[in-house]
Formats: sequence, structure tokens, C-alpha cells
Amino acid sequence: VETYTPERYELSDTPGVATGLAWTAVGGEILFIESSITQGKGEKLTITGNLGDVMKESAVIATQVVKARAERYGIDPESFENRQLHIHVPEGAIPKDGPSAGITMCTSILSAITGRPVRPRLAMTGEITLRGKVLPVGGIKEKILAAKRAGITDIILCADNRKNIEEIKPVYISGLTFHYVSTIDEVFAIALGKQPSDI
Amino acid sequence: VETYTPERYELSDTPGVATGLAWTAVGGEILFIESSITQGKGEKLTITGNLGDVMKESAVIATQVVKARAERYGIDPESFENRQLHIHVPEGAIPKDGPSAGITMCTSILSAITGRPVRPRLAMTGEITLRGKVLPVGGIKEKILAAKRAGITDIILCADNRKNIEEIKPVYISGLTFHYVSTIDEVFAIALGKQPSDI
Amino acid sequence: VETYTPERYELSDTPGVATGLAWTAVGGEILFIESSITQGKGEKLTITGNLGDVMKESAVIATQVVKARAERYGIDPESFENRQLHIHVPEGAIPKDGPSAGITMCTSILSAITGRPVRPRLAMTGEITLRGKVLPVGGIKEKILAAKRAGITDIILCADNRKNIEEIKPVYISGLTFHYVSTIDEVFAIALGKQPSDI
Amino acid sequence: VETYTPERYELSDTPGVATGLAWTAVGGEILFIESSITQGKGEKLTITGNLGDVMKESAVIATQVVKARAERYGIDPESFENRQLHIHVPEGAIPKDGPSAGITMCTSILSAITGRPVRPRLAMTGEITLRGKVLPVGGIKEKILAAKRAGITDIILCADNRKNIEEIKPVYISGLTFHYVSTIDEVFAIALGKQPSDI
Amino acid sequence: VETYTPERYELSDTPGVATGLAWTAVGGEILFIESSITQGKGEKLTITGNLGDVMKESAVIATQVVKARAERYGIDPESFENRQLHIHVPEGAIPKDGPSAGITMCTSILSAITGRPVRPRLAMTGEITLRGKVLPVGGIKEKILAAKRAGITDIILCADNRKNIEEIKPVYISGLTFHYVSTIDEVFAIALGKQPSDI
Amino acid sequence: VETYTPERYELSDTPGVATGLAWTAVGGEILFIESSITQGKGEKLTITGNLGDVMKESAVIATQVVKARAERYGIDPESFENRQLHIHVPEGAIPKDGPSAGITMCTSILSAITGRPVRPRLAMTGEITLRGKVLPVGGIKEKILAAKRAGITDIILCADNRKNIEEIKPVYISGLTFHYVSTIDEVFAIALGKQPSDI
Ligand SMILES: [Ca+2]
Ligand SMILES: [Ca+2]
Ligand SMILES: [Ca+2]
Ligand SMILES: [Ca+2]
Ligand SMILES: [Ca+2]
Ligand SMILES: [Ca+2]
Ligand SMILES: [Ca+2]
Ligand SMILES: [Ca+2]
Ligand SMILES: [Ca+2]
Ligand SMILES: [Ca+2]
Ligand SMILES: [Ca+2]
Ligand SMILES: [Ca+2]
Repeated sequence: VETYTPERYELSDTPGVATGLAWTAVGGEILFIESSITQGKGEKLTITGNLGDVMKESAVIATQVVKARAERYGIDPESFENRQLHIHVPEGAIPKDGPSAGITMCTSILSAITGRPVRPRLAMTGEITLRGKVLPVGGIKEKILAAKRAGITDIILCADNRKNIEEIKPVYISGLTFHYVSTIDEVFAIALGKQPSDI
Repeated sequence: VETYTPERYELSDTPGVATGLAWTAVGGEILFIESSITQGKGEKLTITGNLGDVMKESAVIATQVVKARAERYGIDPESFENRQLHIHVPEGAIPKDGPSAGITMCTSILSAITGRPVRPRLAMTGEITLRGKVLPVGGIKEKILAAKRAGITDIILCADNRKNIEEIKPVYISGLTFHYVSTIDEVFAIALGKQPSDI
Repeated sequence: VETYTPERYELSDTPGVATGLAWTAVGGEILFIESSITQGKGEKLTITGNLGDVMKESAVIATQVVKARAERYGIDPESFENRQLHIHVPEGAIPKDGPSAGITMCTSILSAITGRPVRPRLAMTGEITLRGKVLPVGGIKEKILAAKRAGITDIILCADNRKNIEEIKPVYISGLTFHYVSTIDEVFAIALGKQPSDI
Repeated sequence: VETYTPERYELSDTPGVATGLAWTAVGGEILFIESSITQGKGEKLTITGNLGDVMKESAVIATQVVKARAERYGIDPESFENRQLHIHVPEGAIPKDGPSAGITMCTSILSAITGRPVRPRLAMTGEITLRGKVLPVGGIKEKILAAKRAGITDIILCADNRKNIEEIKPVYISGLTFHYVSTIDEVFAIALGKQPSDI
Repeated sequence: VETYTPERYELSDTPGVATGLAWTAVGGEILFIESSITQGKGEKLTITGNLGDVMKESAVIATQVVKARAERYGIDPESFENRQLHIHVPEGAIPKDGPSAGITMCTSILSAITGRPVRPRLAMTGEITLRGKVLPVGGIKEKILAAKRAGITDIILCADNRKNIEEIKPVYISGLTFHYVSTIDEVFAIALGKQPSDI
Repeated sequence: VETYTPERYELSDTPGVATGLAWTAVGGEILFIESSITQGKGEKLTITGNLGDVMKESAVIATQVVKARAERYGIDPESFENRQLHIHVPEGAIPKDGPSAGITMCTSILSAITGRPVRPRLAMTGEITLRGKVLPVGGIKEKILAAKRAGITDIILCADNRKNIEEIKPVYISGLTFHYVSTIDEVFAIALGKQPSDI
């Protein structure tokens, strides 16, 4: 009963919005991760978007990854106290799961906290671990095709996914720039121009 | 065992009540979203009305969307502390789900907080995202017919749903005014005459 | 294994007890809603009586409806702080559900808070909405027969249920007075002789 | 794998222990309700004994019934603050359910709070309502036979269960004294010799 | 996939460890109950070891039984505030259930609190009730054989289980001393040499 | 849909990361346990990684084992207050369960707290009990082969698993050093060079 239309990237300078790549039953698709921060008692994390357990865990891990890097990025660690973080993945009618939105969630959160918008026409896909390592994910070919179709120009992938790109016919990826990373700090540098302040 | 009668719009100047459009097994129907605010320790959100998980998430997102815009609409952000917000969708005997009540929930909440009643004979349908973007929804034709039958004169829809209206025979929509929007701020301007105070 | 006997109305001047009408597998029946208030940290709501989810939600809505009207009825709004409200529907062995006890729950709660007993030989049935509107419910004929059998003389119904009464043979309803209402404030006036103090 | 032996009443002057009557798959049986009160932050209720939902609700209702009568029985209402009440029904290996232990739970709790032991060789069965009314229960014949077999001499029943006793052959109930009650206050008077102090 | 080896008793003077007897699909076995106490906000009970609901309830009851006896055993009742109690039953891969570890749990907890190790080569089995009564349990023969095999010399049983021992051929129980008890205080005297200080 | 690649050990001096050995449907594999500590109200434990109940319990037990040894290892016991501990096991797409990661979790936590990295090229497998005893686990042969394949040189096992190593052909384990332990303190000495400060 809900409309289902392939997403198209739209320029937007709202902080807190990062673009991920999903692999669904009907092929690849871009998907947005939205983070919003408000004041409130305690330290609360709200996760919405019809997410499965693994994807909910990704949001919990992403929150901790950013929090543990607060000082490194010049963020007052107390800025997590009495702040409520809400992470949402539209569209509510479509169930979503899997760990591959991990680095997109990290980027969305850091963007919301710093108020710095994510680099335009950039999408990314990769699992995040608690120490900030980026892990490879599946469905690369379908995801890349969807990204190109949607108007994306830059894509962040785990270095271990380079082999999946090399198997795609060049014509399908012309006009796309790939950024291969191993850690979330490299993701932040590309997506937000953020360098750890203590390095 | 419960009576099931098509709803009819009734004029009412109670703040906190907004009119949505639902697509049920027996066709379209109007449905009311009610919000009520009382004093209480902490910041509590209560959601009732026999709602499925996706619709409950819509209420959580709507609350955050309004809270994040508090300052923009001249609302003291501390007015969420020690306030309990209750969102209800009559009628309890009928299960309801889906994301399409998102913008109606936002409107109901802002109406309750500001004490300003929603514009009369207005109905709306659209998914809300955390950054305040309005997404298209399904079942448009059935919803529009129900709205007209119930005495509605104005309808807010996502701009991406304009194509669904253009496919309906003109005779079915004569006497209806459509307002196409992309953001919740446009919804608030139409429904509550509220302009962001800082724009 | 539990005894099942048709309830009979018994005079009682205990505040907090209101009489509802239920429609069960074996026909209509009267049922009592009991509310009890004690002191305690915070603001707690306890609901018992083997109730289904919809009926539990009715108790939550009823509590909010009364709380939102506290000032209107001359009740100190702080009287909800550090008070624990318990709503119970005997008999524990019988599962109960549906929204039709809504107005009876509101009446039971306001009676408990004000210490004012409910008018004797009065029963009622109707769904409550968050803004205090009364909605029609089903099973009217069976409920009315049960009420009469139990010794009830006055019945509160939603105005939209008037048509259901008009379809019942007059002999079955002789001796019964019907009070048709649209809002919970009308219910309170009939059941508790309570007028909003600010009207 | 657990031993199952018919219970036998044993004299004990431990406060907090009251004797109920259960109706199980293998006939009637006596069962003990134990209440224990300790100090602790807040006001906590713990319920154990492999109880079904209805029987757990009985414990919640019983706690509220006693709490609401605190003043009436000369108990400092603040004695519920920072006190943790634990209600247990041995034996853990046997699932138990139903509302008929309600008045036994009330008696166990008041005995624990006052430190006054329950009258010896007394058993009881009856549902409790929130206002303190006692409701009739089923399985009376089997329960009575079990009570006699276990050495019980006095039995409290709801007045509405008198007809069930009158149907039992006199030889089976010789030596038993029946106490018919309508309210929990009558139960307390018989079981604990407690009179409401304000009557 | 996990190794399953019959447990053998090993001498250890760690306080908080008590030896129980379990009856499993493959016969009797000894099992260890471990309790550990640390500082922390509030009064928290953690229960681990792949336990079923009845065995978890046993841990809750055991905690309350010890807490209610604190004063009697010369323990400052406030020593439960801001202390976190963790009760664990190795081995995590094997599901465990039933009430028969009740008295072993009580002993483990009191040992942890007092810092006094449990008497060596002692095992026990019996359900605990909230008032401290010890109830008989099943599987006695299999449990006793396992205890002997594991090097146990002393066994605590409920007095009502004496008949089960008398049915075992003497050769199987030579070298074992049985201690029959009715209350947890007798268990504590045997296992910990602890006498209630106020008796 | 997720990539599944045999893990390879990579040198890293990040504190909080310890290497375990898992036995999966497709054979043995190394797996990383990550712990991260941040500031926050209260004392919170977060566990992620698509873990089953037994493995989640292992994380709870490991936390308590380390906390109970805080003083012994020169850690301020108050360093657990207002600290939030997060334990994660990549990769989110793969469900994991069983108790055999217990000692790896303990090591990961103590490494995170002390800021001392775990000895390189070391892996371990063993169940932990609450008193710090190490229990044997299954799948030893498959785990050892995976460890060698991944570049591990040192392996910690329970002394009771020595027999499983002796059954493996020497050629498969050449170049591997085995460390057999009985307690978690021995694990900490090998993995972190940590000696209890009070011994
Ligand atoms: Ca889409
Ligand atoms: Ca993966
Ligand atoms: Ca309707
Ligand atoms: Ca949609
Ligand atoms: Ca009845
Ligand atoms: Ca209805
Ligand atoms: Ca029994
Ligand atoms: Ca009953
Ligand atoms: Ca074993
Ligand atoms: Ca038993
Ligand atoms: Ca892997
Ligand atoms: Ca094991």
C-alpha cells in the first residue's frame, strides 16, 4: 500500500544526513541516515526506521564509536550528557537490516554533533567495529549501480571491497570516484573534512 | 463486535486534533490524531490507539521533529521537560499501521503545544523524516474520495504525490484544494498559520 | 474451574467504583471498574483484571483525560504527583478487551480522586478519545438487557448509539432512562453531579 | 522429576504465612502464601512461585488493598516507602494460576506488616477486588476435602459460596467451621483478630 | 559442541561457592553455585548460567531469605544497599531449571557476604521457601550416586527426603554422612558453622 | 548477502581488543572481542554483535569477574562508577553463541580499563566462571587449525583441554605455543603481563 520509488540524491546542506547504499530484494538503492540531537535529561538513544536487530545494533555501535572519539575531534565529551540522540532511516514502510550502514551512521552522528554537513554527492557502505575498523560488506555491484543512477559521484568502501569493484565492467563505474578506507577516521576525513585534532 | 461507521469531519476548535487520511481494508477513511500535554516528572511519551510498530515509530519521529524545531517556532525548549505528551488515534478496536500519519502527528503535537487549533476542514497524509522532509505515500485515490465524502475541503500532500492526483477524474476532486509540500515547515504554515520565527 | 455468575448490581457508596456494560460470549453483563489511589514515589499507573491490550490502552487514555481536566474540575494538578493510581476490573479469571469501558474508567478515576461516589443504579458504555469525545460502541441490545436484569435504572450512551436503542422493542427497555452524551464532561455531570468549575 | 506430596498443615507462628486452598489437576490441596518485608530503596514488589498472569495480578491487587487500608489498621502509610515486599507461593516446580488466592495474599501481607501470626488451622479461598469485596470461586468441594485431610479446622469463604457447601454431604464437613464473608475486613477480623482502628 | 564432563569436587576455599546436586538427562551431577558481591549504585541482583524461570526465581527467593536474616546473623542490613549481588551457575552451555538449588543458593550468598568459605566436601539439595522452610526434592538416588562419585562426603537433605535415602542399598551410600534439615538456619549451621547470633 | 571471509590476524596495539577462537558451521575461525569505555551516568553495560543469550551472559559474567578483581590489579573500584562499558563482537551479520569466549571477554575488558594492549599473535578460548575458574570448551581441533591459518603463534587453553591438543597430529600444531591455565589470573599474566598487585 505504500509507494516504492527508487531514491534520487538531492542536494541538501542539513547536518546530520548521510547517504548509504542498501541491497534490497529489488536491487541496490541509496538510503539516507538521519541524526538529530536535542536536549533532555540523561543520555538517551532513539532508533527508528523499521530496523532489524543487527541494524539497531549498528546504531548503538556507531554512537559509541563517535563518543569514544569525542576528544579526538575536539568535541566536549560532556556534550553527550543531557543530550538525546535520535537516529532514523526513512522509509518506515520498508523493513531494513544488516550491518552495512555502520559507517554511514557514524558519519550522520558526527555531522549532527559538529553541525558540519556531509560532502555532497557522496555515498558509503561498510560495517563498523567498536574500535573504528571498517569491514567489507556484500552486494557491492548492485549498490554501485544504484548510486550512479541516483546521481552519486563519490563512494567510500572498505579496502577489502576493492576486489568487488575490479570485477565490475568499467563502463558501469565511469564517472565514479572510489575512496577505499580501513578506519572510521579516514571516512570522517573524506565525508566531513574532519581530521582528528590530536594527530 | 464494535460499530464501524465511516467517520465524518466535525468542526472543533480543540487544539491538539489534526485530521489524517487512512487506507483501510474497506477503502479510504479520515482519522483523527489527538495530542494532549500534561505536567509530570521527566519527559514521557505515551502512544495509544492500537497502533502497529511503524505507526508508533511515526509518533516518536514526529515528537522529535517538533522538539528539534521548538526554538524556530518560538517555543521554549524547556517546555518539553517535565511535560508528558500523549498521542492517541481513535478508534481503539481497529488496528492501524504504516508511516503515512507522520505529518498529521507533527501537526497535532505542535497544535497541542502552541494551543492553536488546526485550520478547519483540512486533512493531510504523508510520511515524515527526522530532518522534516515529507515523503509520498500510497492509497491516494481512496483517501481523497473518503476526505471529500467526509466534508474535507483542503488536503496537504507530498509534492511527489501530485502525479497520483492528476490520474483521478476531475469530477471526483471538484471542490477540493490540494496543497503540495516538501517539508514539515510548509505543512505547519498551511495547517497552523505558523511561520518559523527565525526566517 | 471458576464460578461464572451473572453480576447483580449492589448499592454501594464506595468512591472509585463505576458500572460498565460488557458484551461477552454468553451475552451482555454488567462489570465494575474499580479505582484506588495511594501515596507513592513518582506517578504510577497499575492496571489489572486480565485485560487485553486495547482495554489496557483505554485505562491509559482515561487517566490522561481526567488528568488533563484536573484544573477544570477544581483538582490540584499536583495531586497526580506522588500518587499511584490502580485501576482494576474484576473478575480475574475472565479475559476482557475492547475500548467500550473507556467512559466508565474515566468516571471511576474521577470518583476516586474526588471521593464522590457514582450515582446509584447507573451504568454506561462508550469509547473515550483523548480530547474527551465519546464514541459509539457495539453490542448495545445485549448490554441493555443485562443492565435491566441486574437492576440498573439509568444508562449513559454515546449519542451515535441512539439508533441502536430505537431498534429495541419498547417492552425490553421500559423502566430504563437513557442519557445520550457526546463528551466526557456530560458523563461526569450525570454520573458524579460534577460540573467543570470554570464553565 | 520433583516430588509431589499432598501438603499437611503444620503449626507455625511465623508472621507472613497464610493458608490457601487450590484446585489442581489431581484434586484439592492446601497451599501456603508467604510474605516477607525488607528494607530497600523505593517501593518494590517481588512475586515468585511459578505463578500465571492472573495469580500475579492477584498479588498486585492484594498489595494495593492492604496499602489502601493502612491507616484504617493503624499502620503508618509511610511504612510502604523504602520497604520491599516479596510474596511467594511454594512449590516452585508446580505452575499455579487463577484469582482464588486473593484474600489469602491480603492476609499474608497484613500479617507480615503487623508481625501478627495468622490464626492456626485456618484456611481460606476467595477472589479479592480492589475495593476489598470478596468474590466467590470454584472447586469448593475438592478444596474443602483437601483442607479437612490436611488438618484444617476453620475455613473462610465468600458468602456467595455458601450454596456450594450446602451441596456437600454433612459427613465430609463434620468438624469444620465455615466463616462466610463479603469483605476483606471481615477476613482480617477472623484471621488476624484485626479490627479497623477507625470503626 | 561443548565438552560435557562429569564434574569432580575440587577443594577450594573461595567464599561464595557452594555445591549443589542436579538431576539431568544423563543422570545425577554435582553443580556449583557461585556468588560474587561488588559495590554499585542501588541494590542489583544479576543471575546467569542459562537458567530457566523456576531456577531464576530460586535465586530471587534465596536473596530475600538471606536478606531477611541479615540481622539474625550479625550482618549490617545496610550492607545490601549499594551492593550488587551476582549469582552464577556454570556451565553456560547447559540449560538448568527447577527449584532444588534453593538452599545451595542461600548458602552461596551467605558465604559471599560473610567471606566465610563453605565446609569442604559438602553438597546439598532442597527447595527453599520464603520463610526459610526447606522442602523435599526429587531425583535423590541419582544425585547421591553422583555426589559420591565426585568425592563428596557430607550431604544436606530435607527431612522429608529421608525416606528416599532409606530406599537406597547401603553399599551405595557407605562413606556418606546425611544431614536432615527442616529450615535454612540448620543448613547454615552445618555448611558455614553459622549460628543465628540472636538465638 | 554479507561477505564471509576467513579472518586473518592483524597486528594492532589498540587496547580493548582480544582474539578468541570460534567453532562455526564452516569450521574454526578467529574472532575479535572489542571493549570500549566511555563516561556516562551510572554504570551501564552494552553488549552487541548478534550474540545469543549464553554469549551475552558470558559478557555479563566477564564484567563482574574483572570488577571483583579491580583492587587486586590496582584499579580504583570507583572507576566502574559513571563509566559505560561496551563489548562488541564483529561481524554483525553472523549470529554467535556459547560460553567459550568468556576468558577472551575478560581479557578485552581488563585491556580496555588499563589501556594496556593484549600480547600480539595470541588467541584464547575457554569458559569463565564467576569465581575466575577457567572451564574446558569444545571444538578445539578446528579452532587450533583456524588460529594457525590466521597467523596466531600463542594459544591459551583450559588445562582440561590439554588432552584435546595431544590428540592432534604434531604437524598441524608445529609453531604454536600452548599455555594451559586454570584461573583467569593466569590468563591475565600471559595476555597482559598483569600480575595481581596484592600477591
Ligand atoms: Ca525508496
Ligand atoms: Ca559483514
Ligand atoms: Ca471509523
Ligand atoms: Ca512510504
Ligand atoms: Ca460475572
Ligand atoms: Ca469503537
Ligand atoms: Ca504439595
Ligand atoms: Ca472468579
Ligand atoms: Ca559438567
Ligand atoms: Ca519441589
Ligand atoms: Ca569472518
Ligand atoms: Ca562448556
